[in-house]
Amino acid sequence: MTDTPATAPDRRPGGRTARVRAQVLDAVRAELAERGHEGLTMEGVAARSGVHRTTVYRRWRDVGGLLADVIDAAGEIDWQPPDTGSLLGDLTALNEEIQDSLTVRPSFAVALMAASFHSEQAAQAQTRLWADRYAQCAVLVDRAADRGELPSRNTDAHALLVAATAPVYHQLVLLRADPDPRNSRRFAAAAVSAAVAGAFTGTDGPSGGPHGDVGQ
Amino acid sequence: MTDTPATAPDRRPGGRTARVRAQVLDAVRAELAERGHEGLTMEGVAARSGVHRTTVYRRWRDVGGLLADVIDAAGEIDWQPPDTGSLLGDLTALNEEIQDSLTVRPSFAVALMAASFHSEQAAQAQTRLWADRYAQCAVLVDRAADRGELPSRNTDAHALLVAATAPVYHQLVLLRADPDPRNSRRFAAAAVSAAVAGAFTGTDGPSGGPHGDVGQ
Repeated sequence: MTDTPATAPDRRPGGRTARVRAQVLDAVRAELAERGHEGLTMEGVAARSGVHRTTVYRRWRDVGGLLADVIDAAGEIDWQPPDTGSLLGDLTALNEEIQDSLTVRPSFAVALMAASFHSEQAAQAQTRLWADRYAQCAVLVDRAADRGELPSRNTDAHALLVAATAPVYHQLVLLRADPDPRNSRRFAAAAVSAAVAGAFTGTDGPSGGPHGDVGQ
Repeated sequence: MTDTPATAPDRRPGGRTARVRAQVLDAVRAELAERGHEGLTMEGVAARSGVHRTTVYRRWRDVGGLLADVIDAAGEIDWQPPDTGSLLGDLTALNEEIQDSLTVRPSFAVALMAASFHSEQAAQAQTRLWADRYAQCAVLVDRAADRGELPSRNTDAHALLVAATAPVYHQLVLLRADPDPRNSRRFAAAAVSAAVAGAFTGTDGPSGGPHGDVGQ
């Protein structure tokens, strides 16, 4: 609040502060890709970035601070959700993007997920980023409703998007299955079928008791 | 191959080898729950288990060996998939079991997932365990087909099970959302709707080009 232009750091894009940040975050990404987050150290990042270590410690404090900032920087990219003309096309394209990010080697996305299990700061940044991305993708569901592809304007966009994308993460990150290029479309199509059947309408899914109808 | 009964360790259930393993794995679980896998050390496990450290080093070698064995031991439990009388009921019960395992604090399941990002041995054991569990659950899909709940005997059980369960993992483990008790049934119901619509039939899901029908 008391900063004056004379003493505030130069935060203009292209200014010294922004340049230092770009150098440091580039070094973080390179170290993560090469060594994983376990090999990430303040000293290694300082050495690689060419930025003085006292600056790195002062601005980012610790590895958690570096990880959180690299995730925040990913959120500042002007990312746009796909717009193919159909819900199935959009969700398939989204899944293809996710699958690519998880199967490229080294995978920056997987390194960040691993890091988020070990740094509360990284975990919070990751949670914020995903919340933003899913919120941005709600437009896919709005457009599908506008085109009459969904039975109701009352579709829960977040639930539909999670149903479409979660299987791709699950197969590749947790089950460590071999990438299957058909999965992007297959799980997108399954989510569309479920949405058309009304599975994401309102707050409670299709009617019926918790255990459905029993037997014959 | 050259072991004789006289020199082989006593591996009978209740024998000394089995007792030592039980003591050590109990200590691993307790340390994981208290400290997470980063706090897991050979020395800590030996001290807590009361088993001599040379025995722990000889049989498990390193922390990866301990983690892999504790995961293998989980796979030796006589777990049975739910049998409620309907596919929706079974998948909902399965999701409730998953949700419980991920939301209990401290969560052994989450500690193992975190560990699997850092130990190749733990990751392989985890992958084996999950492959076994999903294979065991294929019976849910067979029974549903027997009851006439599915349009085809040709449903891909693994894809259907992943579609039903992955969103629960995704919400709780990666998105770190607050647990929502309705999610177990909601995502189970979505997977059933998709299966009934034929989304998991054959190898390629519903027909149509990769981007579906464009426009209205």
